[in-house]
Amino acid sequence: MRSFERSSQEARPLSFEKGFNRHAEGSCLVRWGTTIVLATATIEEKVPRWIEKKGAGWVTAEYSMLPRATHQRVERESIKGKPSGRTQEIQRLIGRSLRACMDLEKLGERTIIVDCDVLQADGGTRTASINGGFVALQMAVEKLLKEEKITQNPIKDTVSAVSLGINKGEILTDLDYQEDSTCDVDINVVMLGKDQMIEIQGTGEKTSFSISQTNDILLQAQKAIEKIRKIQLEAK
Amino acid sequence: MRSFERSSQEARPLSFEKGFNRHAEGSCLVRWGTTIVLATATIEEKVPRWIEKKGAGWVTAEYSMLPRATHQRVERESIKGKPSGRTQEIQRLIGRSLRACMDLEKLGERTIIVDCDVLQADGGTRTASINGGFVALQMAVEKLLKEEKITQNPIKDTVSAVSLGINKGEILTDLDYQEDSTCDVDINVVMLGKDQMIEIQGTGEKTSFSISQTNDILLQAQKAIEKIRKIQLEAK
Amino acid sequence: MRSFERSSQEARPLSFEKGFNRHAEGSCLVRWGTTIVLATATIEEKVPRWIEKKGAGWVTAEYSMLPRATHQRVERESIKGKPSGRTQEIQRLIGRSLRACMDLEKLGERTIIVDCDVLQADGGTRTASINGGFVALQMAVEKLLKEEKITQNPIKDTVSAVSLGINKGEILTDLDYQEDSTCDVDINVVMLGKDQMIEIQGTGEKTSFSISQTNDILLQAQKAIEKIRKIQLEAK
Amino acid sequence: MRSFERSSQEARPLSFEKGFNRHAEGSCLVRWGTTIVLATATIEEKVPRWIEKKGAGWVTAEYSMLPRATHQRVERESIKGKPSGRTQEIQRLIGRSLRACMDLEKLGERTIIVDCDVLQADGGTRTASINGGFVALQMAVEKLLKEEKITQNPIKDTVSAVSLGINKGEILTDLDYQEDSTCDVDINVVMLGKDQMIEIQGTGEKTSFSISQTNDILLQAQKAIEKIRKIQLEAK
Amino acid sequence: MRSFERSSQEARPLSFEKGFNRHAEGSCLVRWGTTIVLATATIEEKVPRWIEKKGAGWVTAEYSMLPRATHQRVERESIKGKPSGRTQEIQRLIGRSLRACMDLEKLGERTIIVDCDVLQADGGTRTASINGGFVALQMAVEKLLKEEKITQNPIKDTVSAVSLGINKGEILTDLDYQEDSTCDVDINVVMLGKDQMIEIQGTGEKTSFSISQTNDILLQAQKAIEKIRKIQLEAK
Amino acid sequence: MRSFERSSQEARPLSFEKGFNRHAEGSCLVRWGTTIVLATATIEEKVPRWIEKKGAGWVTAEYSMLPRATHQRVERESIKGKPSGRTQEIQRLIGRSLRACMDLEKLGERTIIVDCDVLQADGGTRTASINGGFVALQMAVEKLLKEEKITQNPIKDTVSAVSLGINKGEILTDLDYQEDSTCDVDINVVMLGKDQMIEIQGTGEKTSFSISQTNDILLQAQKAIEKIRKIQLEAK
Repeated sequence: MRSFERSSQEARPLSFEKGFNRHAEGSCLVRWGTTIVLATATIEEKVPRWIEKKGAGWVTAEYSMLPRATHQRVERESIKGKPSGRTQEIQRLIGRSLRACMDLEKLGERTIIVDCDVLQADGGTRTASINGGFVALQMAVEKLLKEEKITQNPIKDTVSAVSLGINKGEILTDLDYQEDSTCDVDINVVMLGKDQMIEIQGTGEKTSFSISQTNDILLQAQKAIEKIRKIQLEAK
Repeated sequence: MRSFERSSQEARPLSFEKGFNRHAEGSCLVRWGTTIVLATATIEEKVPRWIEKKGAGWVTAEYSMLPRATHQRVERESIKGKPSGRTQEIQRLIGRSLRACMDLEKLGERTIIVDCDVLQADGGTRTASINGGFVALQMAVEKLLKEEKITQNPIKDTVSAVSLGINKGEILTDLDYQEDSTCDVDINVVMLGKDQMIEIQGTGEKTSFSISQTNDILLQAQKAIEKIRKIQLEAK
Repeated sequence: MRSFERSSQEARPLSFEKGFNRHAEGSCLVRWGTTIVLATATIEEKVPRWIEKKGAGWVTAEYSMLPRATHQRVERESIKGKPSGRTQEIQRLIGRSLRACMDLEKLGERTIIVDCDVLQADGGTRTASINGGFVALQMAVEKLLKEEKITQNPIKDTVSAVSLGINKGEILTDLDYQEDSTCDVDINVVMLGKDQMIEIQGTGEKTSFSISQTNDILLQAQKAIEKIRKIQLEAK
Repeated sequence: MRSFERSSQEARPLSFEKGFNRHAEGSCLVRWGTTIVLATATIEEKVPRWIEKKGAGWVTAEYSMLPRATHQRVERESIKGKPSGRTQEIQRLIGRSLRACMDLEKLGERTIIVDCDVLQADGGTRTASINGGFVALQMAVEKLLKEEKITQNPIKDTVSAVSLGINKGEILTDLDYQEDSTCDVDINVVMLGKDQMIEIQGTGEKTSFSISQTNDILLQAQKAIEKIRKIQLEAK
Repeated sequence: MRSFERSSQEARPLSFEKGFNRHAEGSCLVRWGTTIVLATATIEEKVPRWIEKKGAGWVTAEYSMLPRATHQRVERESIKGKPSGRTQEIQRLIGRSLRACMDLEKLGERTIIVDCDVLQADGGTRTASINGGFVALQMAVEKLLKEEKITQNPIKDTVSAVSLGINKGEILTDLDYQEDSTCDVDINVVMLGKDQMIEIQGTGEKTSFSISQTNDILLQAQKAIEKIRKIQLEAK
Repeated sequence: MRSFERSSQEARPLSFEKGFNRHAEGSCLVRWGTTIVLATATIEEKVPRWIEKKGAGWVTAEYSMLPRATHQRVERESIKGKPSGRTQEIQRLIGRSLRACMDLEKLGERTIIVDCDVLQADGGTRTASINGGFVALQMAVEKLLKEEKITQNPIKDTVSAVSLGINKGEILTDLDYQEDSTCDVDINVVMLGKDQMIEIQGTGEKTSFSISQTNDILLQAQKAIEKIRKIQLEAK
């Protein structure tokens, strides 16, 4: 049986506790099964140098794990002196995903930085970060609208993400850490609304997968993402 | 009026939520006013090279702030490539304080690493870290005793910490961020039980302070520490 | 018209000059259109610490661009002090792809490091690196077999890679730099033999893509990969 | 018997050789017992970015040990790639102490950097650095006054420092290396004139200390500081 | 017998393949015996800060080896985090040598960066880099003249370099790797035209050398440099 | 007139104060004109990994400038995170020079590290470091002989160094900072005894120099080195 007594097509229980951090312009504590991520959105009234004076804004993300988010404690990246390749790959994915839902010209010349800090990891930390990152981003955008710093909503659609795997031929939705370690194939899917993929990252280091399996995975991903989207929109 | 409607001698409301992180051997979420720190204790069955084969263990601490723990977002130290001087100074203080309550020979040849990660900062993050670090350390030690890896309790006493300041001649207990910015003198005191100081760090960059003022501060610190100690011992 | 006067389904002219570097156990100079990559395979008679004494070997990859591989000169990563996130992401992809074709137990306790250095970049440097990396890897394995250091060929299948994009609704095979900059969607596909995908990485930062488009892209990728595979196997 | 045949209340012989370095705006070679520190003060006609255009100046300090200042050679921090936590803690202390005696507005928009380089270490290097740093700072300020770059003396008072310890219940003034290693409690005190403390840093990792002991230590520190101050003012 | 069946006074076969890299303003692939270096010259329309607004330009060089340029693979400097001392020493030598032939005022306020990347190393990589660096530099300058960005040729003379050694009393021209490892004395000479030395770097870690030997080495170097110069000027 | 009223062939007044540092196995304070260098020699009973178990020892050097050794303060290399190219080039030169006088097998499996720290710089810091480094090295070797850790003197000869320049056609011995900045050609020469060169490093960035000029420079260098050698041998 899968954790939380769920079927192969079900994701773990997901919730967003908005406003967990009171300093940030947007924030939520994401709990997805026993994975816990704190997402905060910070508004800075400047943009990276390479897009200055183009009339558009920017959204970027940073991702990190607390040293004891994992079963075994992991050394801090501030001590190793740099973020690992895995960390950078994940934060580039989160950043691209969140930018995909934005009309950056409507945001104006400012940057929203979404920080995703994993307090406890049990699989799906990058998808939890995208889902919570969107909630925090939305709060920050609402603040800008309310303060009349912008007049039009730059958010074009929701962004939602889920991981899937193939285990002995069966497609599983939302892998926990145990499943992630044993699955043959691991695919992360990020979508805007229905049938609007913006990211797919699939890897089969142990076993290859076919084109028709990929199709089935994407159809199953779409169903999960519809539910995640609903929870994001109803979060308080 | 001070925050939380308290007198000059009162600390802010303090609580410890034990077991917040389920992977760590000990953990608690410290809430001190609106300061939030996650403290975890990790047991590693090895010691630093320089105390190997001496029959004794070691306790060390790491301290970090999430980038948006503060009013203004602060760049991650993993990106700057190294912990700042302030960070290192604080984690050396936490480490020394927690070692002061331990009989390291009774701990055996193992290390307990106490990670203090500030989720939200409103003054007193280093004292909150020491207070919560002690609670997490104690849980880890209890686990060692329960699993019969050690037979005698290495913890000799509680460790508690509080900050104090002098504002226009008045001594204030437990400064929040606002008070910390405006006080003339800032003193951190760490004690074991009654009248057993193990650390005092006082600085008066703007105004000097007299020997008799120092005496008064220490007496007032002692009263606060007695209350903190009680909350540490009763935490669940 | 596309560069090299090719149709939407055609890749650029591809060749492998084997033995370009005479020190390495395997090497080839890849020319894919005007993209030039030097791939070398180095055999080291040791494995990373975390797989020691498990009776298996390891394959890893490093990727780098010479500073003037690009239109604008880029600062060396040795001066910046660390490989960029992009570099690490690419070399993790190359490493996973090359491991996917290997039976690491048959390799024995040794490591093959595949270095992919881009001498000139015109799009497709990561797929060129995988394709040339496979050729160099194969040469190194043949050397091990010839010297009777191993008795069974650890290579299970070829590994081939291609990039595809969607431009105004049309699917293009093997994007050059110009196309890569303007395409809405960018997908890299790595396959073993027919219909055996091992990596898919697709991103649509500007425009989303549908599940059925993904299916079409994969079918078109498969055709290109069959041709690339043939060139890899016939390289001299 | 203590080194230099002195009583528990006496500091080691202390001297300042002014002008040891002829390039710096102020400099002295401090000899305190066998501890040797070269302190130089450099005037730069700019201030750190965060205090620009506020009409005030800044004083900062850097501290370092030559690799063979100690009994065992220590690796250079330029090779380790960063100043250690201990180094940063000490230079923050020196900087705060020297700023405490300054009216930074009278200094004008310029920075004085005080470099304290330990040529030979035998305990008390941080207090020797503060004492010599003050002498070098004063020379630099006198140069500014003489050249009429400033019209009012920004130095409000002397700054002097001493370390004290408790050894078997007895309070010792100015610990040498041997004493520092064996004392139970180690306290550094920095004062302006009489009864005007600006820094106290006390630690009792092995043994705790009481509030009344702290009082006695401070009274004894005050006596030592009066003598140090006299030597600073009479230095040539 | 020496490699390439040459006498003690002969250098290995040397060729320059101009335009190997099509992005750079100047480029050549240098083949000197089996040493292969890719030299590119990049024009940047700015100068380092310390020579800004002086009406003159700058020429600088960077040098690097691909990890498998050598018999044993060497770790990338981007992973070690910094160029080694040897690398920096070589690139400082190349930079000084190339500047020596330039009238930097005629170049105008721009920088030419010459990158020398060793694809395969068999001794003489620094002299090959200087010789090829000059060819690339010259192409970049010709481009500036042709585009009429400058009106006068800033190149005053050719720059050519050769290494020499003493082996059992005999002076050898252009050492390959094998000879370089066994020679007692190793001297690199850089010259403009006839009898115009601009760099000499000689070292005899194992054996000393006399003043008259130095004279003989320089006379033999001069002959080799005349031939190298001819090949540089005739390169296509 | 040159500084210290000397002729073109005379070096500045040179002295070595032996035993300046009491912790090091050998030490001297070098004063050469107004250049001041502290050289210490440290004996470590281990060798670098790459010469382990070969029965021979090693001599290495480190070189650094205090931040205010120069007219303008220079940032510490521990803050920049790494030694500069210039620093590494100089310490490689010092190390090679000191090894050239040693029979490393007679030293046994131990390392002597010579630290050269420039307290005040006025030209000639690298040659002062070699000259003082030899004096410190010799003291350390004498200590090993006296303690009977070695039985044969590994020092084969003295090592001495001097810089020379060409100024308007005239050869100058031992350049001070002012001369070094204005000379056309700058040559450093290191010798064992008479006519036994071990290092020559000459550069003519502004003007070239001829083979016969080089000869004259070396003859003049030899005369200076004879005098330096005498002062080294008579130092107390």
